[in-house]
Amino acid sequence: MKAVRFSTFGHPLKVVEVVEEPDAALKPGEARLEVLATPINPSDLLTLTGQYGQLPKLPATPGNEGVGRVVEVKDSTAVRVGDVVFLPLGAGTWRTQLVAPADTLVPLPPGTDVKQASMMFINPPTADIMLRQFVTLQPGEWVLQNAANSAVGRYVISLAKLAGYKTLNVVRREELAPELKGLGADVVLVDGEDLPERVREATGGAKVRLALDAVGGDSTMRLGDSLATGGVVVNYGVMSGKGPKLSAAASIFKDITLRGFWLVLWMKRTPREEQRALFARLAGLVANGTLQTPVEGTFTLDDIKDALARGMEGGRAGKVLLTPNGKV
Amino acid sequence: MKAVRFSTFGHPLKVVEVVEEPDAALKPGEARLEVLATPINPSDLLTLTGQYGQLPKLPATPGNEGVGRVVEVKDSTAVRVGDVVFLPLGAGTWRTQLVAPADTLVPLPPGTDVKQASMMFINPPTADIMLRQFVTLQPGEWVLQNAANSAVGRYVISLAKLAGYKTLNVVRREELAPELKGLGADVVLVDGEDLPERVREATGGAKVRLALDAVGGDSTMRLGDSLATGGVVVNYGVMSGKGPKLSAAASIFKDITLRGFWLVLWMKRTPREEQRALFARLAGLVANGTLQTPVEGTFTLDDIKDALARGMEGGRAGKVLLTPNGKV
Repeated sequence: MKAVRFSTFGHPLKVVEVVEEPDAALKPGEARLEVLATPINPSDLLTLTGQYGQLPKLPATPGNEGVGRVVEVKDSTAVRVGDVVFLPLGAGTWRTQLVAPADTLVPLPPGTDVKQASMMFINPPTADIMLRQFVTLQPGEWVLQNAANSAVGRYVISLAKLAGYKTLNVVRREELAPELKGLGADVVLVDGEDLPERVREATGGAKVRLALDAVGGDSTMRLGDSLATGGVVVNYGVMSGKGPKLSAAASIFKDITLRGFWLVLWMKRTPREEQRALFARLAGLVANGTLQTPVEGTFTLDDIKDALARGMEGGRAGKVLLTPNGKV
Repeated sequence: MKAVRFSTFGHPLKVVEVVEEPDAALKPGEARLEVLATPINPSDLLTLTGQYGQLPKLPATPGNEGVGRVVEVKDSTAVRVGDVVFLPLGAGTWRTQLVAPADTLVPLPPGTDVKQASMMFINPPTADIMLRQFVTLQPGEWVLQNAANSAVGRYVISLAKLAGYKTLNVVRREELAPELKGLGADVVLVDGEDLPERVREATGGAKVRLALDAVGGDSTMRLGDSLATGGVVVNYGVMSGKGPKLSAAASIFKDITLRGFWLVLWMKRTPREEQRALFARLAGLVANGTLQTPVEGTFTLDDIKDALARGMEGGRAGKVLLTPNGKV
């Protein structure tokens, strides 16, 4: 079998290689999966460059989520050959095959799109938890976000709509507006100095209490300046390469709070049962098509450098997926 | 009587003037005070420049706290001529005389230093509330602060010592260390890039959960990078002229929260009884000398521009006080 591997942290295109590994014999209770689809997430790129919040011992295989098909099972009835299942989280999924304990594998709900399911465990819960954990919004309230065209941004639009919240979506390119409105976005605004005024106009001066920030730097500040007294900005990404900041006026005089969100910490702190309930709910929404995000392109492992280059580009139309066995 | 007045927002030295006002006749229940001491606080300077969170209708007289002596009372036994009392908060105190309802006046505890008492209502509660409201520290825990030589910084040192917390005090000038240690500071550090490492060394790697920030900009970020996972930075000042910021690593991966603190909002949100209890406790600590801050110099109203120039300088040894009647 083949796997992507890196032995030093650095520029993703420079540090990855594809290696052949022997197929290990299964132990009792184990299943062998062929990996069908596994995405390139921003956290994977930050892991390769060594900037992520937790880093693997090297050499390592990147990749944290995806979908696979059972091709072999040893001494277990938990799954059967042919079952399509979620890959174990954080397993180093950029490989053609993966071995896992059979009784930990969760099958996809019937009718689920394999590509959409392969992106389900990281971005959708991030969107969902950020919408619920920091401010208890009432139906009809507004939520403000930047990077609205990202995968998380699109899940936020869909999940907010489902909960009855209205969304103010900040993007860098005007031409994204029709597509995001098609998804359910209420307002789409191009980022810029006068964002707070335009938020006021668009909402008729309503109190906006929650903002989600994947950009950092001045963009965070403009979100903070757009919120009502006591509002919360949740920072979960660093697309500008800069840390988040607030204006002194927002921080001191308007009591705006800046919080961070990282799914890894949430999982460490949250009881298993609560996690399972969340993932099950989101899996249902992916299965019925409520939650979806576009796919920019699919690549086999042999084209990993092209895939990474595409994944690092701005202005993409969607997520880059690896389909290691070319079967989806 | 004389009063400082400003009719436009702008550079403090350019917008203030001293004007003569007629002595109003007292109504029943009112007392006339001669103002003994009233400080120039950072919030007064921000009010003059128009940058503060709430601004008066112009023309206005600056000044928010101080101490006065009763010189006349009409139809009230609440105070007597000669009583030394706290000035009503936010009354426009930079004047020689002030009229107030007699039954709202609170006398100084016996033996209280008038100058110290004149600075009691803004900086000491700011220090006290920030130490208690955001993180529940246990005795023996560390608190980190920058601008440790400011009036609030010094009150933080004294109040932390009283509560059994240890303080890490960040300053810009090494030579301040002996004086702050004399006050009870446990560690004094000069601000700089490697602050997080030096905090780790000084604390033996202890988890620091609370930092207080009066500076903004990169200094806030260094505080955030010095805290343990889940820590809170409380921003209450803008000495650098810049808003507060965090590194993405602190915000996202270490779940560092950035909060703002403004006493005006706290007073709006806090029941009167709780406020009175806090002020009474702090008045006791000022009266017995536990809380004190140095005075850089005293000025009459005629020297208001010299006083303001001194109040705007960095590297002062203490607070600038106005003594409008030259009597303290």
